[in-house]
Amino acid sequence: MERQNIIDLNSDVGESFGIYKLGLDEEVIPLISSANIACGYHAGDPNVMKRTVALAKEHGVGVGAHPGLPDLMGFGRRYMDATLEEIKSYITYQIGALQAFAAVDGLTLQHVKPHGALYNMAVQKVSIWEGIAEVLGDTNSDLILVVLAGPNRRELEAIGSRYGIRIAFEFFADRAYNPDGSLVSRREEGAVIRDHNIAAERVLKVVKEGKVISKDGGEIGLSADTVCVHGDNPEAVALVKNIRKELVSSNVDIAPMGTFL
Amino acid sequence: MERQNIIDLNSDVGESFGIYKLGLDEEVIPLISSANIACGYHAGDPNVMKRTVALAKEHGVGVGAHPGLPDLMGFGRRYMDATLEEIKSYITYQIGALQAFAAVDGLTLQHVKPHGALYNMAVQKVSIWEGIAEVLGDTNSDLILVVLAGPNRRELEAIGSRYGIRIAFEFFADRAYNPDGSLVSRREEGAVIRDHNIAAERVLKVVKEGKVISKDGGEIGLSADTVCVHGDNPEAVALVKNIRKELVSSNVDIAPMGTFL
Amino acid sequence: MERQNIIDLNSDVGESFGIYKLGLDEEVIPLISSANIACGYHAGDPNVMKRTVALAKEHGVGVGAHPGLPDLMGFGRRYMDATLEEIKSYITYQIGALQAFAAVDGLTLQHVKPHGALYNMAVQKVSIWEGIAEVLGDTNSDLILVVLAGPNRRELEAIGSRYGIRIAFEFFADRAYNPDGSLVSRREEGAVIRDHNIAAERVLKVVKEGKVISKDGGEIGLSADTVCVHGDNPEAVALVKNIRKELVSSNVDIAPMGTFL
Amino acid sequence: MERQNIIDLNSDVGESFGIYKLGLDEEVIPLISSANIACGYHAGDPNVMKRTVALAKEHGVGVGAHPGLPDLMGFGRRYMDATLEEIKSYITYQIGALQAFAAVDGLTLQHVKPHGALYNMAVQKVSIWEGIAEVLGDTNSDLILVVLAGPNRRELEAIGSRYGIRIAFEFFADRAYNPDGSLVSRREEGAVIRDHNIAAERVLKVVKEGKVISKDGGEIGLSADTVCVHGDNPEAVALVKNIRKELVSSNVDIAPMGTFL
Repeated sequence: MERQNIIDLNSDVGESFGIYKLGLDEEVIPLISSANIACGYHAGDPNVMKRTVALAKEHGVGVGAHPGLPDLMGFGRRYMDATLEEIKSYITYQIGALQAFAAVDGLTLQHVKPHGALYNMAVQKVSIWEGIAEVLGDTNSDLILVVLAGPNRRELEAIGSRYGIRIAFEFFADRAYNPDGSLVSRREEGAVIRDHNIAAERVLKVVKEGKVISKDGGEIGLSADTVCVHGDNPEAVALVKNIRKELVSSNVDIAPMGTFL
Repeated sequence: MERQNIIDLNSDVGESFGIYKLGLDEEVIPLISSANIACGYHAGDPNVMKRTVALAKEHGVGVGAHPGLPDLMGFGRRYMDATLEEIKSYITYQIGALQAFAAVDGLTLQHVKPHGALYNMAVQKVSIWEGIAEVLGDTNSDLILVVLAGPNRRELEAIGSRYGIRIAFEFFADRAYNPDGSLVSRREEGAVIRDHNIAAERVLKVVKEGKVISKDGGEIGLSADTVCVHGDNPEAVALVKNIRKELVSSNVDIAPMGTFL
Repeated sequence: MERQNIIDLNSDVGESFGIYKLGLDEEVIPLISSANIACGYHAGDPNVMKRTVALAKEHGVGVGAHPGLPDLMGFGRRYMDATLEEIKSYITYQIGALQAFAAVDGLTLQHVKPHGALYNMAVQKVSIWEGIAEVLGDTNSDLILVVLAGPNRRELEAIGSRYGIRIAFEFFADRAYNPDGSLVSRREEGAVIRDHNIAAERVLKVVKEGKVISKDGGEIGLSADTVCVHGDNPEAVALVKNIRKELVSSNVDIAPMGTFL
Repeated sequence: MERQNIIDLNSDVGESFGIYKLGLDEEVIPLISSANIACGYHAGDPNVMKRTVALAKEHGVGVGAHPGLPDLMGFGRRYMDATLEEIKSYITYQIGALQAFAAVDGLTLQHVKPHGALYNMAVQKVSIWEGIAEVLGDTNSDLILVVLAGPNRRELEAIGSRYGIRIAFEFFADRAYNPDGSLVSRREEGAVIRDHNIAAERVLKVVKEGKVISKDGGEIGLSADTVCVHGDNPEAVALVKNIRKELVSSNVDIAPMGTFL
């Protein structure tokens, strides 16, 4: 299939705040095809958002919102029992805020990927994916929702159809997978793949074959539209370079998800 | 002129936050034609914004953003020496956030009116009006910028032209004016007009004749597109009712500024 | 026993923030003997704290810290999975902040009672009570920790001994109790007692007999040092007056917990 | 005089926040004698405060509060027209918060030095120094207030006497001085001294002779109790090492201000 020769690389960026600098955005943005930009709740501030949108534009990278919980002190990584209505309002707010910066630069938003605890909450409770999908459908149905590729693919596709939006399934280059296609919990040993070559090979296998070797050594089907990579530190950036090299030398195109979904 | 028979009434609403309730929005929104909705910086939160947009929609009231300085503790009333770039980013962020709630309800934003210290800073320094106008032009040039009607009308009109946006000049029903058309400072005695009948008559005079009696008793020209009224307390709401009655009985139409500007 | 003729009445106060007013502090503070003052995380700000300490002092009411989770938007009512170390630091911070206002007024803090979700989290997980007790022991071992009177009394007393602090057991005037002495969940019908006379009688029974009628009609032992009352609205204040009247007419003294524990 | 052989070195530390790391605290704290620890308003959070107090204790460094304006987004560097009452409440709150962390570690606070815009506001308006001094006197009169050494020394000493607190006069190692003993504005060329050797010599001259060479080349009297140094970046830390070496080789003792004031 054609899809096997194209993939998106996404990364969380724009996570600085005020005087505080976080992440190597200048280095990682030229290497990716879609940018998940923090929107001021768990990280990011209006000035950072503006600069990050400009940087993404400069490199032809798809601009996406990366909304989080209102918990700057905890970087949006702590579960909070906000109601679904509250979550939907937080997402609406943050999408809108980023959309305005994109508009100022003559861009439109490409995608939305929830951050940290919000992402994990949605992975654990599909009604949260549904609530977010509803917000996208209501706000701007051209927006793509980035979700975790895994065992509930059909259910998530159905949600996309219900709200008239596209869904992008995401693969984690540096994470181990259970035999059912879900992520191995970070609390388990071997959850994170530290070898750059293995990580790059896994990405290639997902792209070319739609398959991943699970934790128990078996091969499982897992197709993905976008691969999550990181730019927190020099080693993470080195991994992204490795993945790009592997993909390019295998004739895989790297492109913003919006161009092929 | 036709314009003398139509006026907009605007009020700051959506200023509640979390558990905290502020203002009699349910009472004042049915009485006005344009709502300035707080956007989460000086007041308001995503849930409040959602409810307030819905309330405005229900009553056919024009929806506008009321962006403020990032100072919830001071309700955006304290001057902060943010740079113009920072101010522009704050405005962009807040306009975008509200725009998304409007979109969810199938509405488009009508106008933008800065709040509190930000408004006063712009009144004192025209480069801030200009920066805000630039943001509107860049984000969505259908947005109307609400400014203080006063001696620098020509300059503000020129700014509107430069950035391709409409300017709405605002009159304060309960404030005294200097002979040059500027507001009497709140620190001076007599700055606030407390008599409801006088306030209503002043509004009518501005609408019908484009004139106001200044502090020293003289009549000065002052034309306005919108009148700022308040809904903080029952007395303020009573004044709005009084103004409406006066206008209606004089055959003045009350309509959202976007319908006639 | 002597203790049966003395009780403390505590209430959450100082929950205003900036321009936002919450609660009838001026009315309820004269009626209680211990004030749980918000410390700026879920509610309250430095100016409010200052005013509230002064008001408590004026009425001879014991001053206590009412620390919450860092969630102003959710009024500290939403569970967050902060680590115990984070919770301990949040408590330390907020106790210290209030202590300084007390010092300015020549007072010392009497007690600490966690707010909202933090209180509920501790009720569900005793290690949180223990962490808070440790903070009190380390910061100022004269501080009394207010906990929910219930089935785990022995365990909580042991924690008090371990960290060298006093524990005050709290009874809720308006809440139903399970046969094991725990609170009936708010999700169950009949969880809240709305009849003022019944509520006042229940308080008197706890004070005089150390007993409460549980949900199933049986009488269970439950001794308390302090009764939680509310000042959110006029009806709540009316209930406090009712309780006071009942106690006074039965010769029960109402006094700050620190005077008799 | 004996005083010529002893000096304190102070630095702003504990300015990280949540996931955000700022400053080389681990490197600079062993080199200084007094630590100005951020208190959660412009920077710092409860976990950071706890760690920073522990680090200061480990190195025998005097612990001080570094309160700022409530402006995390602007790092407390932006002037805000808060009232004096508000400022006093903010200072009280932050001093108290840090004091509790010190107490947990068995320490007492040594000093208070306002941060950024708050410091500058006090330098420009002596009533702010007076308000802060009043807070110290009221909260804990053992606290030393760190102020800018300059032309208004007498006035500041009088304020110290009035409120029963000690005043520490501070010298900036890397800043040029006007002939009247005030700092050369950062907007002027030559305001910052970049040569490490010159900076170290200036410190030595102030300590040994109570004199500084002003901007116009003349020698002026300026005596100081503490020297402000920085730990933001490796170069700043190198300067602190240089200053220490110069002082040590000239037999000047470096000690927390509280030990000799």
